[in-house]
Amino acid sequence: MRFNRNTIEAMDIRYRGNFVNSLSGIKSANIIGSVDTQQQFNAALFSSVVHIGANPALLGMISRPDSVPRHTLENICNTNHYTINQVHTGIYQQAHHTSARSLRDESEFEFSQLTPEFFDDFPTPFVKESTLKIGLTLKEIIPVKSNGTLLIVGEVHTVIVPEQALLDNGAIDHQTLNTVCISGLDTYHSTHFLDRLNYAKKDRAVSSI
Amino acid sequence: MRFNRNTIEAMDIRYRGNFVNSLSGIKSANIIGSVDTQQQFNAALFSSVVHIGANPALLGMISRPDSVPRHTLENICNTNHYTINQVHTGIYQQAHHTSARSLRDESEFEFSQLTPEFFDDFPTPFVKESTLKIGLTLKEIIPVKSNGTLLIVGEVHTVIVPEQALLDNGAIDHQTLNTVCISGLDTYHSTHFLDRLNYAKKDRAVSSI
Repeated sequence: MRFNRNTIEAMDIRYRGNFVNSLSGIKSANIIGSVDTQQQFNAALFSSVVHIGANPALLGMISRPDSVPRHTLENICNTNHYTINQVHTGIYQQAHHTSARSLRDESEFEFSQLTPEFFDDFPTPFVKESTLKIGLTLKEIIPVKSNGTLLIVGEVHTVIVPEQALLDNGAIDHQTLNTVCISGLDTYHSTHFLDRLNYAKKDRAVSSI
Repeated sequence: MRFNRNTIEAMDIRYRGNFVNSLSGIKSANIIGSVDTQQQFNAALFSSVVHIGANPALLGMISRPDSVPRHTLENICNTNHYTINQVHTGIYQQAHHTSARSLRDESEFEFSQLTPEFFDDFPTPFVKESTLKIGLTLKEIIPVKSNGTLLIVGEVHTVIVPEQALLDNGAIDHQTLNTVCISGLDTYHSTHFLDRLNYAKKDRAVSSI
């Protein structure tokens, strides 16, 4: 089937939401932890975490515009810190629950039955139940003019990961963590190791390591 | 285990590359198709495609700086068009092969054994072997000051998807497409349907649809 700009624009709003959100594939699912200036903890599911750079270690994520209240965005702007907590098969339902609308004085940690956890002097809650936890300091908030969304860029300050998930080459074994991914707005996928491939060169075939 | 900014900075460059590239989780894998002004076709694997907005339908992806030759980035700037082609279990090795370094007059389509395919008047090659193909027009190239990378934002112009993969609610069933994901720089994962969850509300438990 083929769709073009006009047929996409003519779709019912919820149908279009499902369709367009599916185009970006099966995506990394993360719970963003933040805290407001009243020490109210916030947790929110994002499916837009993306690699920006390795040195310095930078991660990005897309936030909707601040024209409506966005507690996560507000908190990050106010405190300069946030956490990224990987979703796994054991917590994907709680992770999904954090996407519910809530008032400023309600904590998604509570109604989603997730536990805030703190390490040392890092001022923002991690999700205790997550197995890959990243604490970040805000570097940049970059507006996307086309639709008013924002690219939030943070520098990695702290990483907490189980020793058995760290491979000899430095990579994290997401199968050990039972990492879950998301497609569209509401569909969760488990993942299975398929292959690891050698450094690609144009004159030789790709092969497994 | 815990890592901080200093221990990450002190890692060996390849170890750090594997480590930091793993932090963003298991990510969407896509082949970006483009063409230069000499009609040379280019294909390149990206793991940073991200949802920007549904109306207008916008997708983003991160490109490394243009301080070294980046054929994909150059081609997009010169022609204003590119394609995003979803990677599935049948083509992940060819997709990985496109990441090999090549000269300007060499086409990754050729040495990766992928087939350029054209539809109507869209000026840029799709990947024939991909089952979810998206043609985009360039909207914005946004610099990330922290490290010189660029967020490329495109508007969806054309989508080609098998009818049997389109669900009644507009979502695309990535399991029908055998969509593959990538973690780190070289590890491929197959995906399996886990659950679809209802719209989250704070006062009710999350449940399957």
